[in-house]
Amino acid sequence: MSTATAKKSSKSGSKSKTTKLVYFFGNGKSDGDAKMKSLLGGKGANLAEMVNIGIPVPAGFTITTETCDLYNKNGKKWPAGLEAQVRENIAKLEKSMGLKLGDRNNPLLVSIRSGAAASMPGMMDTVLNLGLNSEVVQGLIVKTENERFAWDSYRRFIQMFGDVVMEVPSDDFEHVLEKKKQQVGAKSDTELNANDLKDVVRQFKKIYLDHTKEEFPQDPFEQLVKATNAVFNSWNNPRAIKYRQINEIRGLLGTAVNIQAMVFGNMGETSGTGVCFTRNPSTGENKFYGEYLINAQGEDVVAGIRTPEPIDVLAKKWPVVYKQLNALRLRLEKHYKDMQDIEFTIQEGKLYILQTRNGKRTAAAAVRVAVELVKEKMLTKDQALLRVDPKQLDQLLHPTFDPKQKKDVIAKGLPASPGAATGKVVFTAEDAEAWAAKGEAVILVRIETSPEDIGGMNVAKGILTARGGMTSHAAVVARGMGKCCVAGVSEIQIDYKTRQFTAGKAVVKEGDFISLDGSLGQVYLGKLSTIESKLSGDFATLMKWADETRKLKVRTNGDTPHDAEVAVRFGAEGIGLCRTEHMFFEGDRIIAVREMILASDKAGREAALAKLLPMQRGDFEGIFEAMKGFPVTIRLLDPPLHEFLPQEAANQQEMADVLKVPVEVVKQKVEALHEFNPMLGHRGCRLGITYPEIYAMQVRAIIEAACNLKKKGMKIVPEIMIPLVGTKKELQILKDLSIETINKVFAEKGTKVEYMIGTMIEVPRAALTADKVAEIAEFFSFGTNDLTQMTLGFSRDDSGSFMGAYLDQGIYEKDVFQTIDEEGVGSLIQLAVEKGRKTKKDLKIGICGEHGGDPSSIAFCNKVGMNYVSCSPYRVPIARLAAAQAVLNQKK
Amino acid sequence: MSTATAKKSSKSGSKSKTTKLVYFFGNGKSDGDAKMKSLLGGKGANLAEMVNIGIPVPAGFTITTETCDLYNKNGKKWPAGLEAQVRENIAKLEKSMGLKLGDRNNPLLVSIRSGAAASMPGMMDTVLNLGLNSEVVQGLIVKTENERFAWDSYRRFIQMFGDVVMEVPSDDFEHVLEKKKQQVGAKSDTELNANDLKDVVRQFKKIYLDHTKEEFPQDPFEQLVKATNAVFNSWNNPRAIKYRQINEIRGLLGTAVNIQAMVFGNMGETSGTGVCFTRNPSTGENKFYGEYLINAQGEDVVAGIRTPEPIDVLAKKWPVVYKQLNALRLRLEKHYKDMQDIEFTIQEGKLYILQTRNGKRTAAAAVRVAVELVKEKMLTKDQALLRVDPKQLDQLLHPTFDPKQKKDVIAKGLPASPGAATGKVVFTAEDAEAWAAKGEAVILVRIETSPEDIGGMNVAKGILTARGGMTSHAAVVARGMGKCCVAGVSEIQIDYKTRQFTAGKAVVKEGDFISLDGSLGQVYLGKLSTIESKLSGDFATLMKWADETRKLKVRTNGDTPHDAEVAVRFGAEGIGLCRTEHMFFEGDRIIAVREMILASDKAGREAALAKLLPMQRGDFEGIFEAMKGFPVTIRLLDPPLHEFLPQEAANQQEMADVLKVPVEVVKQKVEALHEFNPMLGHRGCRLGITYPEIYAMQVRAIIEAACNLKKKGMKIVPEIMIPLVGTKKELQILKDLSIETINKVFAEKGTKVEYMIGTMIEVPRAALTADKVAEIAEFFSFGTNDLTQMTLGFSRDDSGSFMGAYLDQGIYEKDVFQTIDEEGVGSLIQLAVEKGRKTKKDLKIGICGEHGGDPSSIAFCNKVGMNYVSCSPYRVPIARLAAAQAVLNQKK
Repeated sequence: MSTATAKKSSKSGSKSKTTKLVYFFGNGKSDGDAKMKSLLGGKGANLAEMVNIGIPVPAGFTITTETCDLYNKNGKKWPAGLEAQVRENIAKLEKSMGLKLGDRNNPLLVSIRSGAAASMPGMMDTVLNLGLNSEVVQGLIVKTENERFAWDSYRRFIQMFGDVVMEVPSDDFEHVLEKKKQQVGAKSDTELNANDLKDVVRQFKKIYLDHTKEEFPQDPFEQLVKATNAVFNSWNNPRAIKYRQINEIRGLLGTAVNIQAMVFGNMGETSGTGVCFTRNPSTGENKFYGEYLINAQGEDVVAGIRTPEPIDVLAKKWPVVYKQLNALRLRLEKHYKDMQDIEFTIQEGKLYILQTRNGKRTAAAAVRVAVELVKEKMLTKDQALLRVDPKQLDQLLHPTFDPKQKKDVIAKGLPASPGAATGKVVFTAEDAEAWAAKGEAVILVRIETSPEDIGGMNVAKGILTARGGMTSHAAVVARGMGKCCVAGVSEIQIDYKTRQFTAGKAVVKEGDFISLDGSLGQVYLGKLSTIESKLSGDFATLMKWADETRKLKVRTNGDTPHDAEVAVRFGAEGIGLCRTEHMFFEGDRIIAVREMILASDKAGREAALAKLLPMQRGDFEGIFEAMKGFPVTIRLLDPPLHEFLPQEAANQQEMADVLKVPVEVVKQKVEALHEFNPMLGHRGCRLGITYPEIYAMQVRAIIEAACNLKKKGMKIVPEIMIPLVGTKKELQILKDLSIETINKVFAEKGTKVEYMIGTMIEVPRAALTADKVAEIAEFFSFGTNDLTQMTLGFSRDDSGSFMGAYLDQGIYEKDVFQTIDEEGVGSLIQLAVEKGRKTKKDLKIGICGEHGGDPSSIAFCNKVGMNYVSCSPYRVPIARLAAAQAVLNQKK
Repeated sequence: MSTATAKKSSKSGSKSKTTKLVYFFGNGKSDGDAKMKSLLGGKGANLAEMVNIGIPVPAGFTITTETCDLYNKNGKKWPAGLEAQVRENIAKLEKSMGLKLGDRNNPLLVSIRSGAAASMPGMMDTVLNLGLNSEVVQGLIVKTENERFAWDSYRRFIQMFGDVVMEVPSDDFEHVLEKKKQQVGAKSDTELNANDLKDVVRQFKKIYLDHTKEEFPQDPFEQLVKATNAVFNSWNNPRAIKYRQINEIRGLLGTAVNIQAMVFGNMGETSGTGVCFTRNPSTGENKFYGEYLINAQGEDVVAGIRTPEPIDVLAKKWPVVYKQLNALRLRLEKHYKDMQDIEFTIQEGKLYILQTRNGKRTAAAAVRVAVELVKEKMLTKDQALLRVDPKQLDQLLHPTFDPKQKKDVIAKGLPASPGAATGKVVFTAEDAEAWAAKGEAVILVRIETSPEDIGGMNVAKGILTARGGMTSHAAVVARGMGKCCVAGVSEIQIDYKTRQFTAGKAVVKEGDFISLDGSLGQVYLGKLSTIESKLSGDFATLMKWADETRKLKVRTNGDTPHDAEVAVRFGAEGIGLCRTEHMFFEGDRIIAVREMILASDKAGREAALAKLLPMQRGDFEGIFEAMKGFPVTIRLLDPPLHEFLPQEAANQQEMADVLKVPVEVVKQKVEALHEFNPMLGHRGCRLGITYPEIYAMQVRAIIEAACNLKKKGMKIVPEIMIPLVGTKKELQILKDLSIETINKVFAEKGTKVEYMIGTMIEVPRAALTADKVAEIAEFFSFGTNDLTQMTLGFSRDDSGSFMGAYLDQGIYEKDVFQTIDEEGVGSLIQLAVEKGRKTKKDLKIGICGEHGGDPSSIAFCNKVGMNYVSCSPYRVPIARLAAAQAVLNQKK
C-alpha cells in the first residue's frame, strides 16, 4: 500500500484497515525516507534514510505521527488496524534479526523512543531492553554467558519502564539500589554482582506493584503497547505543550514511536561502542574525531566510569572496524552535507550505526566547516551561509579565557555583555579613570551604575554590578561599548566605605585581581589569561559571501571615535546612531551642561552652550575621521535634563561648590525637573522645541566639523536625526531651526557641505502619521526600543516584575526588547514604511536600537524593505550574516 | 457687471479693469448679500443683507477679500481698477448720503473696518471719523453747532489713525491728553473744552509728524487709501496668522474692507444711540431688552460715563422711534432666525442700524431661545439642536452663586471642576469625614490630594488645593464626582500644623467659612448662598429632541451608587466605566488591601481578599440597583499596587501598627514596588496575570451580586472589563479565569445570569491587533486617556513642562487629553474599530475616559461608528446634545 493511499484514507477520517500506520526500516530498504519527517518524525525518517543508503542500522519500525493523532482523538485507544500492523512489523523485525520477542532461547529486545518532526525535549525519551521478563532474562544469561549483564539489563528495564511509562517515582528505585550498595559495601553500581542485582530486580517489582497496583507485565507485547501509549500520551504533557508554545512549534499531528532492535556493545572483546564526529567540533578541522570503549554500552562512555580511547587508537587496534567506520563517516557526511555526530555499536564484530545527526560545534568550527564544505564542493555558498548561526558568532568577536587554566568561581550573575576581562578591583568611576591613567587594568565594581559612571566604565576592562538586569544601565552601556559585564550578582555584598566586597567566604579588596566571564556571567578570583579573538581567514571568507548576498546595509551605533574604529574593523558601513548625550558626561563638559540647566534664561543657557560647542565639534570631527567617509547619523540630545543632575545630596553639594551656587538652587532644580514617568516626559525633540538653543548648538557643531574636514579634503554628508518626533509640525520647526543654523555656518565658513535631516520613528503617533512626517523627513530611523515600550505600554525597567510570568504563560514568546514583536510593533513598522514610501518613494529607512543586532529582527527589517540596520559594534558581523540569511530564506 | 464675470476674470489672474472689486450697499439695494461671506467678509455680507431686506443702514461699500489677495500678491500695491472703483463708489455714497468727502460745508465722514469671512480679533479693527482735516473740522463746527464735538472727533480720528494705520505708539497720545488734563485740572476727558481739545489736536499732529516723518494727511482720499492698506496689511500680521493657525481658519483669501458713512447720535436731543437684544440674553425670555442714551455716541454707552436708560423707557419717552426699532427687532430676528444683538444710532430723528449679529447668551437663555424658536415655528428641531453649544450646558448642571450678593475674592486658581460650594475649612480627609458626619458642610483644603483622601473628598462640598494642574489628582477625581474644585492656588500658604492658611492678608483658620467657584477658579471669604441648578422644562425638551436624534448611547463613568443615581437623573443609559479600585480606599478596606499586598504567598493574598469580597459584592449590588437594569461595565483592578501603600514615613508606621508588622516590612514593600515609570509598569491586566486571585475575587463579587439581585427579580447583565490588554493571549487567560470563577458561583448559587467579558483598548498594541483581540472580546471600550499617552509618548502628569510651548507653536492645536487627537490617536481608533468589526460584525464598541464627554471627540466617536460614549455624570447631558449634533452635522 502506498503512502498516498494512507494519506487519503487518513484524511477521510475513516479507520480503514488499509491506512498505513507503521513503517518498517531494515534489510537495506525502508518504507520511508528522510523527506517524511512530518509523518515519521525526525528520528524515524533519519533511521529510514540511513537504511536506504545502506548504512548498517539495527532494524525496526516507526509508528506514524498520524497514529498518535488518531489515538488521541480516539479516546486514547489504538485505532483500528494498528495492532495488526504492529504485530506484522514485529514479525518482520524478528525475521530480519533472526531473534524472537519473548523467546527465552533467542530473545529480541527492543528500544522504544519518541520522535516528533521537531526536536522536543519535553516528551518521553527512551525505554531500553523492552522484551525482558522473568523467563527471558534466563535465556539472556545463557545466551550472553553473562549473568550480571542480564540482571543489570532487567533491573534497568524495570526502572525505566516504571519511571517513564507508569510514573513510578524514580527515587524509590534509587533508594533500593543505594541500600543494596550499603548492604554489600559497594561504592558504585558496577560493584554489585549478579546476585545483588537479582535481589534488586525482586525489590523493583515490589515497588512497581505497590505503585501501580498491578504486577510488572510479563508479556512483551503488553510491555510494548504500554510503552507506545506512554509515548503517545507524552505528546500532550504540560512540559511538551509549553515547549511547543515557547518554540512556536505548530501544525504537528503528534509524535511518532520508534521501535528498534537492541544491539549490545558489551558482549565481550569483539563488541564495543563509541561516539564520534566527522570533523573536530571544536576547531572544525577535517579530521575524524571521537572515542570508543571495547566491551561496553553507550551509557558507559557517557558516564565516564572507564576512560574511553580516542578513535585514532581504534585505527591501530582494530583496523578492519576502523576502516568500515571511517567509510561510513565519509558517506554520512557526504549524504547529509554537514558535519555529523554519530553513535555506533559493535556487537560481536558487527558494526551498527545507532544514530547520526548534525553535530553541535563551536562558532569557530561552524565557520570553518561551512567554508571548507564549499571548497570541497559539498555545499554552495548560499547553503554554507545558512549553516552558521549568526548569534554564535558572538563567541568569535570577544576575547575568551584560555580554557587550560584553573578557575575559581566565587559568584555568578547575569551574562550581561559577553567577553572575558581580568583586572584590579576599583569601586568608583573616578578611581577607574585614575588607575587606568596609570596603566592599570581595572574592573569597575558597583552596586549599580548611573550615567555619571560612563567615564569609568569606558576605561575599565570589565564591569561587575550587584543589582540590575540584562537591560540595566550597566548592561546596556557595556554591550554598546563591547565591554565585558556581569550584572545583578546579588550574592555579593559591596561595602563602599571599606572598599571591599564579599562573595560567600571570599573577601575581595580594592586592588585585588578578579576576572569576569561576561558570556557565562561568572566571577573568578585572581588573574586569568585571555585569548584575543582572531577574525580568521575562514571568518573573513564567510563574511565576504554574506556581503555579496545581503541587501541590507549594516551600520553601527557608536558615540566615540573608538566605537567607530572597532565597528569599521567589523565591517560597519556607517553609523546609524550617534548618541550625543554620552558626550555630555565627560570631564569638564558635565559642568557646562549643568551650568546650562541651572541657567534661568536663554542667554544664560547660550553662554554655557558656547563652552560645549568646541568640545562637541571636536567629537564629531573625530567620529567623521574614523568613519572614513561612511555616512554618520547623529541624534540630537534625547534624555531628560534631570539625568545630568546628581540625585544624591553629597553630589549635589559638590555640584553647587563647583558652580558656586547655593546647594538649595541645585536641589530645587532637581525637584523641579522630577518626573513621574521620565520615559513619557520632557525629552527628545521636546527639548529642542522648548530650548531651541541646545539643538542649534549641536547642529552648529556637526556642520562646523563637516566644513572643517572638507577643507582637509574629506567629503562628509552628516545626517542630522531628530528624536522622539510625534508630529510633522515638530519636525518642521526643528528642521527649519537646523537649516537656519546651517546657513549661518555656511556663511561664516564660506563653504558648504551636503547634509540630510531626518527623524527617529519611535513614538507610535509618528508611525501612524508617517505619510505626513515623510513630507519633510529625509530619512526614517526606527527607534524600536521606545517604539516597543510605547506600543506595548510597558517600560524595560519596570517590566521585570511581570515579564517572567508573561514568558511562562506564552503571552509573549520572546523577549520583546531583544526580538521585535512582529505582530504588534512589527505591524506598526510595516505601516510606517508603507506610508513613508507612499509619500517619498526612495525614502531611506533604517533601524537603530538593540533589535538592529538581532537575527530574527534583521530578517523582519529585510522583509519590510528597510535600507539598513544599525547595531552595537560587536554585533556588526552577526548582522551581516543575518542579513544575508534573510535574503536566502526569503528566496526559499 | 455681474458677479460671475468678476469671478471669471479674477480666476484668469488678469488685472482686467472689469473685475468687480468693490460692492456698494445702501439705497435699499446692495451689490452683495449674506451668502457672499467669502468675498465680502462676514460684516460686509451682513451689511449688504440688511440693506437688501430694507433695514435702514448707513450706506457704504465693501472692498472684497479678493482685492486684499491681489494687493498682497501685487507687492502691496492697489490692483488696476481699484482706485477707479473706489472713487466711483465714494461718489455713489456721497450721492446717497447727500454729503461730500472733504467738503467743509457738508462733510461726509466714514468709518473703515476690516472684516474677514471668519471672525478674527487679530486684525485691525476700526478707524472712525475718517474724512476730517483742518478745514473740514471747521465745517463740522458750523454744521453741528458743537465745537467741542468737532474737535473731539478730530483728535480721536488722529489718535486712531496714528495708532492703527501708522503704528504711532498710543501711549504718546495718551500722555499728551493726561498732561492737558492736569494742566486744566480736569478729571476726565469730558471736562476738556473745545479749546483744550483744539490744542490737543495740534500736539497730536506734532507727535504724528515726529513718528511718521510726514504731515498728518489732509486729503481724505489719501486718508482712505492709507487706512485701507492698513487693513490689508493687518491680514498678515503675526497675531492674525497665529489666530488663524490656532482656530484652524484656512482657505481664505484675505480680509474685506468696509467703508461706511458715519452717523452721529450726539447731535442733540433728537439724536441717540443704543444696544439691544431681541430677547433677554440672560434668561432667554422673549422680551425686548437693551438700553440707550439720548445725545450720545456708542462709546458713551459702553464707557458708563452716563447711565443709559432701559429700552422700555424709550417706548414711553419716544414711542415713534421705539415702534420703528421694535419692528426692526422682529424683522431681524425673523430674518436671521436667531436672537440678535443690535447696535443702533438715531441721528436727528432718523434711526440707523449699525450692526446686527447673533447675540451671546447664557446657557439658560440658549436653551430657552432654541426651544421657543421652534414653538414659534422659526426653527426646526434639528436647527434648534445645533443652536446650543453643548459645552455651555455645564453652567446649567452645577449650582452657582446667587449673583446678587457681594463677594470677597481672596485668591484665584485653576477652574478645575465646575460648580459653587460653601463650607467650613478642614485640612485633612479624616476631619472632613468626621465633620461631615456631624452634618457640617466642609471645604477640604490640601496642598495636594492623594488617593487616600478619597473619602474626605467625597463628603466635602468642595476641594481647594495649593498645587496641581487641571489634570492633578484633585481635579480629575473632583470632576469625576461632579464636585466643585479649585486647584493650583499657588498664592495660598497652607500650614497643616497651625491648621490655617493665608491668602495675601487674609488668614483662614480651620472652621472658618470659605466659598469656591469651580467654574471661575475663585476663592471667596465667608459663606455665600448658592442657587441649585434646575433642569427646566425647556432643558428637558431640548434633551428629548437630542435623544430622538442621536445614534450614540450615552453612559456614565461612575464608581458608587451615588454617581449612578446622579447620572441616571441626567439621562445616562448605563455605566461605561466603573473603576473598582476607588472602592479599595474606603474605611477598613484599605487595611485588607494592604494586608493582601504584604502577603508573601497566594494563600495569604486569598485570605485578605476574602475579607474584601463581601464589601465589593455590596458595592456592586448598590450600583446595579441604582442603575435599574441599565448595563454596567466594571473594570477590574487597574492601578499599580504601590498606589495603595503610604509613601510617607509616618503613614508607613501607622500602617505597620495596624497590620502588626515591623515598619521595615512596609518600607521594603514600598521600595520593592517602586517603579521608574508607573504608567508603563505592573498594572492593569498585568496584575491579573501575576495575581489571578485578585481578579477572581472581583469577578466573584460581580457575579454573586448579579445572582443575588436576580433573586430579587432584577435582570442584571454585568459587563466585565479587562484593562490594559495588549495581546489576545492576555485576554484569553483572564477570560478563562473569569469563566471558571463564574461557573463556580453559578454552581454554588444554583442559578445563572447572563454576562459579557470584554476589554479596554488603551494600549496601542491592542488597537493594532484588534482583529485578533476581537476573536474573544465581547466588547471594546477605548480608554483614550492611556491610549493618548502611549500613542503620543507623553504622560499627562509630565507634559506640563512642554505642553504650553506645544500649544503656542501649534504643534497640537488643542489639549489632546481633552479632545481626541484625531490625526494620530483617532487614526489608531479607526483602525481598531475596522479591524474589530471585521472579526465581529456587531462588536459593541464604546469609549470611556475624559474624551467621552468632549463634544468634538463625541462627533469623532459617532463618525467611526461607536455604539456609546461614557463620561462623568455631570457631562451626560452635554454628551447627549453633542451626540445629536454629531448626527446632524454629518448629514450636512
